[in-house]
Amino acid sequence: QNARDMQEDETSSLDSFLTSLSKVNSSRQRASALFHWLINPVSSENFFRDTWEKKPLLVRRQKPDYYHGLFSTTEFDRILRTDNVQFGVNLDVTSYSNGKRKTHNPPGRALSCSVWKYYESGCSLRLLNPQAFSSTVWNVLSILQEMFGSMVGANIYLTPAGTQGFAPHYDDIEAFVVQLEGKKHWRVYSPRSDEETLSLVSSPNFSQSVIGKPIMEVVLEAGDLLYFPRGFIHQGDCLPDAHSLHITISSYQRNSWGDLLMKMVPAALEMAMEEDVEFRKGLPLDYLSYMGVQNSEKNDPRRVEFQKRVDSLMKKLAAYAPVDAAVDQKAREFLHDCLPPVLTPDEKTTSVFGAPARWEDGEVVDVEAQIRAQTRIRFIRGGIARLCSNGEDVLLCHTIENSRVYHKEEPKSLEIKSEYTDAVEFLIHSYPKFVTVASLPCDTAEDKVLLAEMLYEQGLIHTSEPLQPK
Amino acid sequence: QNARDMQEDETSSLDSFLTSLSKVNSSRQRASALFHWLINPVSSENFFRDTWEKKPLLVRRQKPDYYHGLFSTTEFDRILRTDNVQFGVNLDVTSYSNGKRKTHNPPGRALSCSVWKYYESGCSLRLLNPQAFSSTVWNVLSILQEMFGSMVGANIYLTPAGTQGFAPHYDDIEAFVVQLEGKKHWRVYSPRSDEETLSLVSSPNFSQSVIGKPIMEVVLEAGDLLYFPRGFIHQGDCLPDAHSLHITISSYQRNSWGDLLMKMVPAALEMAMEEDVEFRKGLPLDYLSYMGVQNSEKNDPRRVEFQKRVDSLMKKLAAYAPVDAAVDQKAREFLHDCLPPVLTPDEKTTSVFGAPARWEDGEVVDVEAQIRAQTRIRFIRGGIARLCSNGEDVLLCHTIENSRVYHKEEPKSLEIKSEYTDAVEFLIHSYPKFVTVASLPCDTAEDKVLLAEMLYEQGLIHTSEPLQPK
Amino acid sequence: QNARDMQEDETSSLDSFLTSLSKVNSSRQRASALFHWLINPVSSENFFRDTWEKKPLLVRRQKPDYYHGLFSTTEFDRILRTDNVQFGVNLDVTSYSNGKRKTHNPPGRALSCSVWKYYESGCSLRLLNPQAFSSTVWNVLSILQEMFGSMVGANIYLTPAGTQGFAPHYDDIEAFVVQLEGKKHWRVYSPRSDEETLSLVSSPNFSQSVIGKPIMEVVLEAGDLLYFPRGFIHQGDCLPDAHSLHITISSYQRNSWGDLLMKMVPAALEMAMEEDVEFRKGLPLDYLSYMGVQNSEKNDPRRVEFQKRVDSLMKKLAAYAPVDAAVDQKAREFLHDCLPPVLTPDEKTTSVFGAPARWEDGEVVDVEAQIRAQTRIRFIRGGIARLCSNGEDVLLCHTIENSRVYHKEEPKSLEIKSEYTDAVEFLIHSYPKFVTVASLPCDTAEDKVLLAEMLYEQGLIHTSEPLQPK
Amino acid sequence: QNARDMQEDETSSLDSFLTSLSKVNSSRQRASALFHWLINPVSSENFFRDTWEKKPLLVRRQKPDYYHGLFSTTEFDRILRTDNVQFGVNLDVTSYSNGKRKTHNPPGRALSCSVWKYYESGCSLRLLNPQAFSSTVWNVLSILQEMFGSMVGANIYLTPAGTQGFAPHYDDIEAFVVQLEGKKHWRVYSPRSDEETLSLVSSPNFSQSVIGKPIMEVVLEAGDLLYFPRGFIHQGDCLPDAHSLHITISSYQRNSWGDLLMKMVPAALEMAMEEDVEFRKGLPLDYLSYMGVQNSEKNDPRRVEFQKRVDSLMKKLAAYAPVDAAVDQKAREFLHDCLPPVLTPDEKTTSVFGAPARWEDGEVVDVEAQIRAQTRIRFIRGGIARLCSNGEDVLLCHTIENSRVYHKEEPKSLEIKSEYTDAVEFLIHSYPKFVTVASLPCDTAEDKVLLAEMLYEQGLIHTSEPLQPK
Repeated sequence: QNARDMQEDETSSLDSFLTSLSKVNSSRQRASALFHWLINPVSSENFFRDTWEKKPLLVRRQKPDYYHGLFSTTEFDRILRTDNVQFGVNLDVTSYSNGKRKTHNPPGRALSCSVWKYYESGCSLRLLNPQAFSSTVWNVLSILQEMFGSMVGANIYLTPAGTQGFAPHYDDIEAFVVQLEGKKHWRVYSPRSDEETLSLVSSPNFSQSVIGKPIMEVVLEAGDLLYFPRGFIHQGDCLPDAHSLHITISSYQRNSWGDLLMKMVPAALEMAMEEDVEFRKGLPLDYLSYMGVQNSEKNDPRRVEFQKRVDSLMKKLAAYAPVDAAVDQKAREFLHDCLPPVLTPDEKTTSVFGAPARWEDGEVVDVEAQIRAQTRIRFIRGGIARLCSNGEDVLLCHTIENSRVYHKEEPKSLEIKSEYTDAVEFLIHSYPKFVTVASLPCDTAEDKVLLAEMLYEQGLIHTSEPLQPK
Repeated sequence: QNARDMQEDETSSLDSFLTSLSKVNSSRQRASALFHWLINPVSSENFFRDTWEKKPLLVRRQKPDYYHGLFSTTEFDRILRTDNVQFGVNLDVTSYSNGKRKTHNPPGRALSCSVWKYYESGCSLRLLNPQAFSSTVWNVLSILQEMFGSMVGANIYLTPAGTQGFAPHYDDIEAFVVQLEGKKHWRVYSPRSDEETLSLVSSPNFSQSVIGKPIMEVVLEAGDLLYFPRGFIHQGDCLPDAHSLHITISSYQRNSWGDLLMKMVPAALEMAMEEDVEFRKGLPLDYLSYMGVQNSEKNDPRRVEFQKRVDSLMKKLAAYAPVDAAVDQKAREFLHDCLPPVLTPDEKTTSVFGAPARWEDGEVVDVEAQIRAQTRIRFIRGGIARLCSNGEDVLLCHTIENSRVYHKEEPKSLEIKSEYTDAVEFLIHSYPKFVTVASLPCDTAEDKVLLAEMLYEQGLIHTSEPLQPK
Repeated sequence: QNARDMQEDETSSLDSFLTSLSKVNSSRQRASALFHWLINPVSSENFFRDTWEKKPLLVRRQKPDYYHGLFSTTEFDRILRTDNVQFGVNLDVTSYSNGKRKTHNPPGRALSCSVWKYYESGCSLRLLNPQAFSSTVWNVLSILQEMFGSMVGANIYLTPAGTQGFAPHYDDIEAFVVQLEGKKHWRVYSPRSDEETLSLVSSPNFSQSVIGKPIMEVVLEAGDLLYFPRGFIHQGDCLPDAHSLHITISSYQRNSWGDLLMKMVPAALEMAMEEDVEFRKGLPLDYLSYMGVQNSEKNDPRRVEFQKRVDSLMKKLAAYAPVDAAVDQKAREFLHDCLPPVLTPDEKTTSVFGAPARWEDGEVVDVEAQIRAQTRIRFIRGGIARLCSNGEDVLLCHTIENSRVYHKEEPKSLEIKSEYTDAVEFLIHSYPKFVTVASLPCDTAEDKVLLAEMLYEQGLIHTSEPLQPK
Repeated sequence: QNARDMQEDETSSLDSFLTSLSKVNSSRQRASALFHWLINPVSSENFFRDTWEKKPLLVRRQKPDYYHGLFSTTEFDRILRTDNVQFGVNLDVTSYSNGKRKTHNPPGRALSCSVWKYYESGCSLRLLNPQAFSSTVWNVLSILQEMFGSMVGANIYLTPAGTQGFAPHYDDIEAFVVQLEGKKHWRVYSPRSDEETLSLVSSPNFSQSVIGKPIMEVVLEAGDLLYFPRGFIHQGDCLPDAHSLHITISSYQRNSWGDLLMKMVPAALEMAMEEDVEFRKGLPLDYLSYMGVQNSEKNDPRRVEFQKRVDSLMKKLAAYAPVDAAVDQKAREFLHDCLPPVLTPDEKTTSVFGAPARWEDGEVVDVEAQIRAQTRIRFIRGGIARLCSNGEDVLLCHTIENSRVYHKEEPKSLEIKSEYTDAVEFLIHSYPKFVTVASLPCDTAEDKVLLAEMLYEQGLIHTSEPLQPK
């Protein structure tokens, strides 16, 4: 970043807001506050009661600079110049005209020179994982994910004046369209059927003739926000007089009750088969002669009987549903999806990332700074880690070593010995309060310090004050 | 087979019984009759009402020759001499003494010479798939499988006098122990808990100290039968004065209601998620903060609420259970497990396997024998084939090309065009009646003949009379 | 086989010849004698000196029954009726007319009925591995392979009168075309270039216009033989008045000096790199600037120098060629390719396959027959086994457990402990002489018997007289 | 980097040297000059004539700052603090005491805090790929690789005073040990045998008792250099009064004549088998009876004959060796191993990486800057790309998209149409001269520009002057 960019950032409304956020004690409150900033002046309470997963929402602000600092074409240009952006992997070049949606990606690296040529020729640009290139986007998404309890992603769209880059379609995520520069004409359409409502999969591209009339038609200007739930068809195009830059922040992909049941139901059946002999009894000797598709039109009382028996067993299944274990499976996937936190200067100074041990003037200094019984600690973020069981061991799954690039790292966890699980659970539930190492429910004073040291060295906890060398 | 064996076979009670069975019109009736022969004088009705999956049963006959012809040590010797029996694959050499169960299999082929040396030294022999080596066992099992609607397997056990070959254990199948030669002392024990009742998995070997007292203790003699359900612990040993040869015929491995539900439940959930928006609604924003193992001891009303919601969705699942499709999945697996039929001379003469076309005196003769409108046809066995859908196409799954060796062949099926499905279903439901080709519900007379020819050439149907060359 | 077939076989010239062959002491002499029968009246000496790998040869005999008993259309019909012949795997249905070569294989089993229909309609039939279905073909090929030291294979071709089944082409094997029934018109053409001479790969189908004029044109009649080397283009068609049945016996696929060098050369280089520092010296710093395709037209003295250095190293390679180890690699592959032997009654009686141990009258008898110091033994066939090193252990690779179906079994071998290698080598080199167990060069009398017993139980050796029970 | 580091860097001798290097016209001359700086005052000519691959060399300078700027403990500390260094992947913690070599890597990220604790406790640190973390190391290695024509790698070693981190051993690379800070006591030993001379593989750890007496024993001080060839055993330990930081720069791993022959020899044999019938002739019928390990002690004249034939064929192989194609295979692997170039500001300005097209004040500007006939171009580095054939297509293999992390990217290449190969070859051979686009040997003026544009957009060429917008 050159000096001019730095200056812009420093004075941006978002930048100072993020700084003030970092003073908020709990990462969960930070998440709520940031989300409120996103949908302001709508309140979260109203939003989640009336709008979320129900209908589109337009927030018109008349403040073009409201989202200033989040992302800009200037940063887009810098990224193309500095970072290894690959066509097809990180950037898509697209067009939609005369009802035809095309992708123009050449192979290889997307250098500014060729990207801007495409843009000049009327193509739209979609930057696929801006959080890997922009620290601010990374920071914002990583804070928000703690409120959603579900991965928060984003795409950036840059569209030349007078063009459209994408065909009408619906997505499998809740979408927050944040207009950053210029303006864009949007049309939003209702799901066309019960099946499409809150769809768990994205649609193909639609032709204009099959999508009906929009229920909302607006021109989004810089500083405005448009929300719509999954399953709502939408399309956006640029007016002849202005390009458009927006970021779509998304969440709740495959985060439905059904997705949870997919973890739960096979395990429930397994458990039922182990515990309830009714599930282990043999099928009727002759069931193949009246059941199955080739017999489905037979009018046989045994079919009714068979169906009843299935019904009764299916209903018994509920009693065996391992809800907490299934939630942990979802949680583990979520922790793997998560962005790692962007640490504030304070968080760094009080954690292993700012530990005083260092090389100075030809020798190692200050390695002896240490955690003691009276040291006050807490997890570095509320959502940084979670105790899960994988069936055999207790694991502390965490996000601290995740990558800005989706799933570039394997899921990370520490095995927690049984004598430490209570103490870890205590620490988790204490957040955001700092507690002394001495207060950890471990058997011995030594264990308390050992556990705290381990969590500290992994970067999972921080201390109320920076550790001091002796 | 040498002449003496032939003679024995010809006069065996089983041999003549199987010949008479082949006159029975329907393969399903043949199966019932053969099963009745097996458990005679108990009636099938009583057996399946009072005993099956419930408790052990002893049939004592005082007729040492009752099962004569099914298998013998003479045939065992012939097999070792003639066939490629491999240690560890087809034959196990075992011992159980002083509470220690051992396996003595060397690598390679099991030739009679070394096998009998092991036997002389006190080892037991278990022949693992006698149906691959003995045509009679193959024939018997392939007939019975049509009654059970579940794979029927068998093992042969030969035990020297005064020894025991196996430790106490229970199996995951319904077992019919048929004493063929000599005698054996058996002890049968009740399942030790609800969980072991009708167990779907086999147990490890048990020590004598953990199995309690037998509920049945008998000496089985040639011609006797012992049945016990899966989950019943058992052990057999030879008295000092006699060796023992028995065959254990088994069925109903993983053929329980639960096993059917394993096919059904994931599909039910998938369907529910497509059709019912309740399954697609998002999980509560903050559910990770009160659900999951780390929160399982929290006293939080939201936990109750969450659990209720899961419950209600689980119960709704039953309404989406695709019973017939799941049965077809089970049926397809069963058809793959099945032994191919052992065709009777009549069945051969009236099917493609006995079609008159042949090479004779330097030329091909009688290729023109043909199916005509008035030809009367039916499936060659009731259980030879089944119409199933794989989601896209309609398949006629069949067993005619299966192997005597378990799963040596891939599952076989013919794709049935939509214009033929009614006619194939008509043929299936007509069995055991022969119907004229003209009566098939096809669009054209040509179609009727084409379909019949296809099924005939695959060996799936036969004709009431041998086809005559012009 | 019905009685009539039996009778035919018994009186067949081949049958009685094979019986007489089985009296010949050495399996290598049997192989020579059988090969001489094949090419009679040409002598083997003349054949291998003047004809083999050089030019076609026609043997005209005027004895239609000369090869009687080897294979027949009657046996073909029996095989289709009895055995599991699969279209595309074991049988090809082909045609060649108007310059178009077509394959007509449907999926599934090739039953006589549909096969003869194809034949009647003018298609040729190629049975791909007759040795798996015909014991006589198996026996003949398994004897011959010992003379060739290379796998001997066969195909059967049945062609209707007035048709041709295959386009002109050349093969990668030495071909012996044995006319069994009817007659066939053959045209053989010289290799068209040095590159095609003794080609190691088969050609595609040729059009008539590119193959020139035949160097041999004959009508082969039953009892005649036609030989041609690999690389010779050939085509055969039936005259209007007679069908044709022939078997093509083949050998020497990928059995050239070059194929041996493929085993040898990488190992030679590896050894040279270990032992000679010249091979380990670094390449010139700047070689990439004057070598490589982009510099190949440069006139640079360094190129000449570089090339010279390569040349000199390549020539030094010869000194490191591990000839015997490479031959053993070829030998191991050959032993895996081999058919197992068809044992004569005498061979059975004197080997483990006829060991007296058996089940009789309710007990095991004669298990105590034993090998003693004075027992005289030899390998059951000259080519049954071979001592090879796999780099670490000494293995006795053998063919006794191979299958009639190509490579259906993994390569088989016994690990030979170092104290036994001399004795095994002694036994190998003693063949065809029987030697006493006492004469084996082992350390102890016990070792001699133990080794002999191990080889006997594996079926690799037989005794001069049947073993007698005590 | 904080301000103080910046200042240090700017005044470092290396930094200003690298700046002056960037004015040198040809990247090959830059490489030579940098290598000369490394071994100064020894001349390259002398070095490669007398020392390289022959014996160790000590350059003692008495100038502790000679290598200043290459790497430092300060940078080590910064890397641990800023970059994702993983134990076991990027950093090894080791010790060697009482003859025992140990590795102490915990799992996970290597944060400065825990790394310095290990160091304080007496462990050595080895940073495995400093080029991924230090731009200067990256720059130096990427320049040097062009001189060696073989991958240039590096490790950093930091050792506490009074300790040793590694056991005596030899490596498979040419090693340049550059002392950066402190001092280290080194002992170097001759290869112990011909086989170990210029070894192509690294040795295991040796005990002191098997390595004999050192041929060189020195204390290396900051600014000194120690070179030794592969196969020379060595060990270094710190004196009680000073820690040691050194970087070992290495090259010529598997870059021997033998390694080239490994590419060449199989292809030579393949070609010989295609072109020379002697290689395709069949092996002798009976060769298995006198060749092979089991016959290796036979005194058989046929063995001599056989061996002679093999010899003569091996010698003929040399004539078929595809030297240039094999060199291209080596070259392709080298290009994949290469570090991408660190572009100078000038190189950036005149290449696609500095193309004027950019986003400015709400719109794209200067996209129309274009290559014209009179534009003067050349490859951006001499070693950036190479024309290779993969057997079918002509490829321009290049390093511009390689990663600083070894093999993180797949090998990259452009397919060059046949009408462009001459022009690309012309461009390659013209380097370091700039040539006009008009001078490219293409068919049309349009082709010339199209080719130049393609190479420009890939970043492979640069222009003599920055492209100017219209």
